[in-house]
Amino acid sequence: MGSRVVGWIGDDAAVVRTQAGVSVTSVDVMVDGTHFRAERAAPGDIGWRALAGALSDIAAMGAHPGEAYLAVVVPPGFGHDAALALHAGAQALATECGVTIAGGDLAAGPALTVAVTVTGWAGAAEDVVRRAGARAGDLIGVTGELGGSAAGLAVLEGRAAGSEAFVARHLRPRPRLDEGLRLARAGARAMIDLSDGLATDARHVAMAGGVRLAIDLDRVPVAHGVELELAVTGGEDYELLACVPPACAARLDMLTWIGEVEPGPAALDLRGGSAAAQGWRGHEHRF
Amino acid sequence: MGSRVVGWIGDDAAVVRTQAGVSVTSVDVMVDGTHFRAERAAPGDIGWRALAGALSDIAAMGAHPGEAYLAVVVPPGFGHDAALALHAGAQALATECGVTIAGGDLAAGPALTVAVTVTGWAGAAEDVVRRAGARAGDLIGVTGELGGSAAGLAVLEGRAAGSEAFVARHLRPRPRLDEGLRLARAGARAMIDLSDGLATDARHVAMAGGVRLAIDLDRVPVAHGVELELAVTGGEDYELLACVPPACAARLDMLTWIGEVEPGPAALDLRGGSAAAQGWRGHEHRF
Repeated sequence: MGSRVVGWIGDDAAVVRTQAGVSVTSVDVMVDGTHFRAERAAPGDIGWRALAGALSDIAAMGAHPGEAYLAVVVPPGFGHDAALALHAGAQALATECGVTIAGGDLAAGPALTVAVTVTGWAGAAEDVVRRAGARAGDLIGVTGELGGSAAGLAVLEGRAAGSEAFVARHLRPRPRLDEGLRLARAGARAMIDLSDGLATDARHVAMAGGVRLAIDLDRVPVAHGVELELAVTGGEDYELLACVPPACAARLDMLTWIGEVEPGPAALDLRGGSAAAQGWRGHEHRF
Repeated sequence: MGSRVVGWIGDDAAVVRTQAGVSVTSVDVMVDGTHFRAERAAPGDIGWRALAGALSDIAAMGAHPGEAYLAVVVPPGFGHDAALALHAGAQALATECGVTIAGGDLAAGPALTVAVTVTGWAGAAEDVVRRAGARAGDLIGVTGELGGSAAGLAVLEGRAAGSEAFVARHLRPRPRLDEGLRLARAGARAMIDLSDGLATDARHVAMAGGVRLAIDLDRVPVAHGVELELAVTGGEDYELLACVPPACAARLDMLTWIGEVEPGPAALDLRGGSAAAQGWRGHEHRF
């Protein structure tokens, strides 16, 4: 039990010690057939991945992860062992991240559904990094390499051959909690996690901040062997995109710099990239 | 937006100001076909009821209600207007209770599912009332009248005739938040909300505290026109059961006294009641 957690499962509610500051809470729901296919993922992977999605939001705020709550709906035939395995998968990631699964609920229903609530903590509202806040002149960086999760999904669905590492990347993503905290401390002005894909999520940052995000596709860190299109449009890499004042950039060696923030109006401007990319780039992500 | 809420929907996570003390968090999931039938309840009722279930847990802890997060899975054919109506139903109760719906998630799936997370706040861990804590000599009291919700469900299902007031009681229960806070301040030692029914929930308090709860069925406040059995075994009244030191009892005019806590071993002892009740009482709730 985490040191903050005073009481939990078995009471009407979990009791967690708080300090003056802010809580940061994210809710993510994943449904069989919509977000995953239970026949292609082990229960442990499903539990891990559902928690990872919510923890990634905490990472993107630059908050310390705290407690998680799992509400699971299990269909007929999804046995006791499978339910335990799902929970164990979530617990494995929770342990790795220093998170306490402090409560939850379990119900019967027609489709496996996992709704995860995660609460993180920060010292003050000013310490968390929002989607809005990017300013002209900020550098745009991303953690890690992109496209691996989408490539893994393609392998799982039999649409492509590819490395087992991509499959693992898809089934057991690792939220960038340490990086999020370091970026927040280093002065990142805006941050988002890449859950929907670089093109979509960068657009969210542009919209929220009323600025133009100019991204050079030739500088996007693409996972080895993955096509640029997947790296830009594929979701669920759970890497972070951050907008950082140039003066702070030298300290941030975990980022690959892919562009710069320009004055508004709000827009996403994808530059460079292969000629083949022009098609999907042009009409899919303009706004 | 509640005064505690700094940021919410539209960012990666909701940001809420905290004080030194404790947070109290409950998660409740309700699924069409398991917890309700969408064809018998309006979307607004479903939203209200899902939030009420989680808020009732906060009431049972004696905490101040704070923020709610709704994860909703909508099936094909559940339109935009219905989704808005569901949210409006939850919002109506939230407004009544001073709660801010600070975030959530929306997904597609085969069955209407509402997972609600509610966080409440208290000054210190000692201020919240747990299931455990009842001591021999404490008086046992309940708020309100019991059985109305189960009677309403019977009307909805066509199993019985009955008042529309019971139906409203079932579809739009009111969590006993004010009463929970007053009971906590007045020194209640153990508390639970009656979501599964008096017999089941009283047993939880007995088990958690390692004590014997002796309840006189002749003193149970039964909703007018409802049979004793429904009042004792029917769920979802969302009234509170509290164990209170006798010295504090005089101040607690919102309770009907139904029994007394006796030394352990842990047991529930249902006494009195009509002869007709002996059947269901004897074998259903012994443990």
